[in-house]
Amino acid sequence: MAAKPSEERHPVTAYGWAARDSSGILSPFKFSRRATGDHDVRIKILYCGICHSDLQAVKNEMDFTAYPIVPGLETVGIATEVGSKVTKVKVGEKVAVGIIVGSCGECNECVNDRDCYCPKMITAYGGTDRDGTPTYGGFSNDTVVNENFVFLFPGKLSLAGGAPLLNAGVTVYSPMRFYGLDKPGMHLGVVGVGGLGHLAVKFAKAFGAKVTVISTSPSKKDEAINVLGADSFLVSRDTEQMQAATATLDGIIDTVPVVHPIEPLLWLLKNHSKLVLVGDTMGSFELPITPLAWGRRSVASSIGGSTKETQEMLDFAAEHNVTANVEIVPMDYVNTAMERVEKSDVRYRFVIDIGNTLVPPPES
Amino acid sequence: MAAKPSEERHPVTAYGWAARDSSGILSPFKFSRRATGDHDVRIKILYCGICHSDLQAVKNEMDFTAYPIVPGLETVGIATEVGSKVTKVKVGEKVAVGIIVGSCGECNECVNDRDCYCPKMITAYGGTDRDGTPTYGGFSNDTVVNENFVFLFPGKLSLAGGAPLLNAGVTVYSPMRFYGLDKPGMHLGVVGVGGLGHLAVKFAKAFGAKVTVISTSPSKKDEAINVLGADSFLVSRDTEQMQAATATLDGIIDTVPVVHPIEPLLWLLKNHSKLVLVGDTMGSFELPITPLAWGRRSVASSIGGSTKETQEMLDFAAEHNVTANVEIVPMDYVNTAMERVEKSDVRYRFVIDIGNTLVPPPES
Repeated sequence: MAAKPSEERHPVTAYGWAARDSSGILSPFKFSRRATGDHDVRIKILYCGICHSDLQAVKNEMDFTAYPIVPGLETVGIATEVGSKVTKVKVGEKVAVGIIVGSCGECNECVNDRDCYCPKMITAYGGTDRDGTPTYGGFSNDTVVNENFVFLFPGKLSLAGGAPLLNAGVTVYSPMRFYGLDKPGMHLGVVGVGGLGHLAVKFAKAFGAKVTVISTSPSKKDEAINVLGADSFLVSRDTEQMQAATATLDGIIDTVPVVHPIEPLLWLLKNHSKLVLVGDTMGSFELPITPLAWGRRSVASSIGGSTKETQEMLDFAAEHNVTANVEIVPMDYVNTAMERVEKSDVRYRFVIDIGNTLVPPPES
Repeated sequence: MAAKPSEERHPVTAYGWAARDSSGILSPFKFSRRATGDHDVRIKILYCGICHSDLQAVKNEMDFTAYPIVPGLETVGIATEVGSKVTKVKVGEKVAVGIIVGSCGECNECVNDRDCYCPKMITAYGGTDRDGTPTYGGFSNDTVVNENFVFLFPGKLSLAGGAPLLNAGVTVYSPMRFYGLDKPGMHLGVVGVGGLGHLAVKFAKAFGAKVTVISTSPSKKDEAINVLGADSFLVSRDTEQMQAATATLDGIIDTVPVVHPIEPLLWLLKNHSKLVLVGDTMGSFELPITPLAWGRRSVASSIGGSTKETQEMLDFAAEHNVTANVEIVPMDYVNTAMERVEKSDVRYRFVIDIGNTLVPPPES
């Protein structure tokens, strides 16, 4: 089936923006989506966040991108049609889709609510759907997803500000919960204040923690404290400041997306606590054993979050008023936005206003 | 007080073997021990294990050795005198001393039974005792230790075979307990089969685990399986074998005392599990982030074990018949033994027969 042109694979016409090669440049793209199946929810997409992983994918940085690729895994919108057996969602409700649109449902990961680690997990784009056709993401007008992978988007949350929670949000929320960095009264460190980092600060505050932001840029101090609500700020290149903070933190979420020195961070940890690297880099870090051994510290990581955790995170975010600080941009700004993501020139996350700015490609 | 010659600092004459400089060569040494205080237990030393840390210390590899140094932190013997307020031990009982002979008793670590992480922890040798004098270890005829740091040595355990439990044993036992690698039915990996590794295999079996030994040396397979009781064996340099074992282990204890590649080990782990490095190296490992992120794996470490865990470990070892495989050597063999430790030429641990072979130095 994948051999058919993408417009003809399925009965429902769809359109969005796709990259055609590793230049990563996106342009209008016509394709098709399947009809709404018995267990499917059809969604009119209103907003979609832009994520660092989208950048990696369109440029084939992980070396497994199949073109054309329609990115977008922070998708929010309105249910427009539901299959006959759908019980979770009603037409007209606000819904969302993240990175996962399918999993085997049977493996040890799936049956333990950890579908993000299912080896047969189907990703929202760049994956292969059950019917053998490629998946296309949220930079598009419409999508159709099995109800198990559709989230109920809390009414209290802003659609645009909530979109980045679907990936950036759960990427920090899940390890904070799993590794126990969610206890009131903890003193947590957040390294890096980009899309992930600024949400880590907000979730940490919502958990009742004291938060220290750690960054190479002294210029970020004011905003970290006054806008994001951090309690204190450390310049990681200032060895005096760093040494004065030795063994003060109960845990660290490190969101920096490139390889960097972790020894100074390990010494900030109290004994028996964890450095959690969630920056989605593919490199190798230098790991000194002394701070690990002498303080029984550990280094951990994780990727994304399960569908169960994602719904829980959205509900928690709504309850605690956690949303991303976003710059809403029109669809045709996407290539500039991608360039700015590459330069970390965004506070703190781009969200594309799909509903108002994505237009159908001209008939050729 | 430390300025006085070591023979004159205290009222009780003692003798042992000491290194005088960073050659690490040990030779007979006269010194003195304090009188038995109200809370002290005096011990006639019968056996003392030789440990890789003794080698590091006598050669000043950690750059903080003060000479002369009397090593020995796997000390077993008989209580010969107890202070008026001692309740734990009676004269004539088998007792043992490990690496810790004092701690502050007040810090967060001490009050939570983690005295091995107390910043004021006093080590059995190379430390400074409460009275300001240097501590001397178990390569000596006699020692005197506060009862809180004296262990009751189970009657069922062999004195010589049990001595290495005091350091090597608890160094693997403690992290296996703390990091949850102690559940029946688990499949555990043990990397390296030296002093620590062979005890890790035995404890893992005693916990009810299936054990795979991982080693660079195919020659160790037979003994790992037939003598130590491991269930299977992987040659870490055999990439085919290693790949076939991808994601099969619930946890790994890595006892190799030098820096080595850990990426192949990380891929042996199932998702959500841990590689625990206890090899007491001071270097830096190369830590690839992909196996950590994609499987929520983590890398951890620890150092030694608390006094509480050490007693618990001794009792567990007695109950499950866990002792070290030892080569018992006379005191004057110690320098040869040290050289052989450096070359990993021992199966699996040297224990010095202090009771029968340590003689008083000739009067000068």
